[in-house]
Amino acid sequence: MIPIISVVGKSGVGKTTFLEKLIAELKRRGYRVATVKHDVHGFEVDQPGKDSWRLAQAGSDSVVIASPRKLALIKRLDREMGLSEIAAFVTDVDIILTEGYKRGDAPKIEVSRREGGGELLCIPDELVALVSDQPFDLDVPQFGLDDMAGIVDLLEGRFLSEPRSR
Amino acid sequence: MIPIISVVGKSGVGKTTFLEKLIAELKRRGYRVATVKHDVHGFEVDQPGKDSWRLAQAGSDSVVIASPRKLALIKRLDREMGLSEIAAFVTDVDIILTEGYKRGDAPKIEVSRREGGGELLCIPDELVALVSDQPFDLDVPQFGLDDMAGIVDLLEGRFLSEPRSR
Repeated sequence: MIPIISVVGKSGVGKTTFLEKLIAELKRRGYRVATVKHDVHGFEVDQPGKDSWRLAQAGSDSVVIASPRKLALIKRLDREMGLSEIAAFVTDVDIILTEGYKRGDAPKIEVSRREGGGELLCIPDELVALVSDQPFDLDVPQFGLDDMAGIVDLLEGRFLSEPRSR
Repeated sequence: MIPIISVVGKSGVGKTTFLEKLIAELKRRGYRVATVKHDVHGFEVDQPGKDSWRLAQAGSDSVVIASPRKLALIKRLDREMGLSEIAAFVTDVDIILTEGYKRGDAPKIEVSRREGGGELLCIPDELVALVSDQPFDLDVPQFGLDDMAGIVDLLEGRFLSEPRSR
């Protein structure tokens, strides 16, 4: 089982920026990383007129584009998938990070900022760590917004095995 | 095991157009279809600046974008995957069609046109069917470029079970 950690926080708090830094630190230590972004609005990765778009328009339930360096899968869904179902599509990594999925049951890191107020989305029991520019009177490990070394040390202690690529 | 059929033919012969029509006929009969497009040049499905692009740039080996209606997986590869490895990412379909993979070992449909000359890419033993605007003196089932009913009848007889969605 690949460990799954969800990065959650209020809209605009900087989840993607935090994830970029977290991924970079994990990669620096040799881990292979997958990221799952929760998109509630719908998204378009394919471009009108391209062959893959034409195949999807013609009715393909799944379209895969495979090159020597990259594979892309675009799959139509009848219903939203849970994190464990999504994780089944991810192979060859040491950790799966998610952006969003605050209602999922993966352990969570909440990103919070003073300017967003003092309320958190999560209850302490859900949290592996709290990342903020202000202290909280909670029994949860807390880190500054740039303390990637501290956060990855914690993840190594609790969730990670030896990197696959070492 | 989901049956895999490769649609092959010389460049410019109309493989994508043929696949669009074939997919439409399969869907009309209630089958669920996946398509795999072989891209030898490399491709970009993600767009600079988008969150998913930022997560890939930061080093994610796989990025998944999941919405209620669609899932996209973009996976970095160290080496090209074979068709059977790619097929492992495809679920919930009755048939996998590929565009390209002429050197793969899936049974093949070759699309050929008079204006492209009389040579074929495949030997008869590899071919399930030959689709062309000219006859070939070969012991292979032959169909016109628009005879999707005939081709799907053949696929139903040889490869397909009852549609999943019926």
